[in-house]
Amino acid sequence: MKLLEERIQKDGVVKKGNVLKVDSFINHQMDVDLFNAMGEEFKRLFADHPIDKILTIEASGIGIACIVAQHFHVPVVFAKKSQSINLDGESYVTKVESFTHKRVYDVIVSKKYLNEGEHILIIDDFLANGCAVNGLIDLIQNAGALVEGVGIAIEKGFQVGGQLLREKGIRVESLAIVESMNDETGEIFFRAQEHQS
Amino acid sequence: MKLLEERIQKDGVVKKGNVLKVDSFINHQMDVDLFNAMGEEFKRLFADHPIDKILTIEASGIGIACIVAQHFHVPVVFAKKSQSINLDGESYVTKVESFTHKRVYDVIVSKKYLNEGEHILIIDDFLANGCAVNGLIDLIQNAGALVEGVGIAIEKGFQVGGQLLREKGIRVESLAIVESMNDETGEIFFRAQEHQS
Repeated sequence: MKLLEERIQKDGVVKKGNVLKVDSFINHQMDVDLFNAMGEEFKRLFADHPIDKILTIEASGIGIACIVAQHFHVPVVFAKKSQSINLDGESYVTKVESFTHKRVYDVIVSKKYLNEGEHILIIDDFLANGCAVNGLIDLIQNAGALVEGVGIAIEKGFQVGGQLLREKGIRVESLAIVESMNDETGEIFFRAQEHQS
Repeated sequence: MKLLEERIQKDGVVKKGNVLKVDSFINHQMDVDLFNAMGEEFKRLFADHPIDKILTIEASGIGIACIVAQHFHVPVVFAKKSQSINLDGESYVTKVESFTHKRVYDVIVSKKYLNEGEHILIIDDFLANGCAVNGLIDLIQNAGALVEGVGIAIEKGFQVGGQLLREKGIRVESLAIVESMNDETGEIFFRAQEHQS
């Protein structure tokens, strides 16, 4: 998606260790107009998929997922990252490793909000090693629901998450796929995606 | 706001210990159409206030804040609940006590995203003791920005947070104020608010 790639070129900051900071418009301060353009593009890309619900994971996926959901006219469910006393007993639980925070945490969804046979679109801000997305897929499969696809804002194409998901036959649409970055020059190179706007 | 009160009557669940569960439409599964109606009402209520930015706190405030922001045409910033290695060094930090999780945590906003003189609207899903909102006000004041108001989905009117904020002269608009709940009958009583839709 050219609009997102251009914004990453303009406002993204490349840091050592293959870190791409987009916290001025994606995951700390959030540009809701940009999220709306992303929602329109996801709707176009997944137009041939029946979508009953959007699933994301706290925290930075929630804003994008809610704006995107307006284009699909479906509710959003966000998976929680640790047991909360406000959750009822009956939950689907899986474990996810966070490279950002260097720890393993439980990811939880109430059984009431993922149902057998539902068609689910996963939305998240980043895809790198795929740990979070694989955790969400695990929850969906535990519920007997169906993974219709995965919609990502920014994929790190040089990490394995996206490739492994696509090899499993899962439809993954990342609106910007970073092929490489240079923290000395600040350059960011994207994978060409002719089917996207 | 009648629409929200009716939804709470219909889908809210009263639990022992003055717990009101609204996780089927507010803070686990999210009804984005309802959030849009809430955004329209907040825009009407804060029409005479200049708003440059919306500030919320992860995680359950983010979805409402993003949808509400569309009605104000401003960006959203969400405060983070613990130090993340993805945050730059330069942040405003305050401490907030969580009654839900029974612990104290750091709440952080990058100095880049709260600026002197900005007019800020705080948005969150719940107001009870006011700890989270007071933490956000602290961050805004540290930045030399201005608290234009506080917009809350559900206030527990029998706890002190809302009263203390209003006594300080802060404009607080809660779309539903619960005066009392009965966990045996499931009854929920709301404070009358004639100025709301």
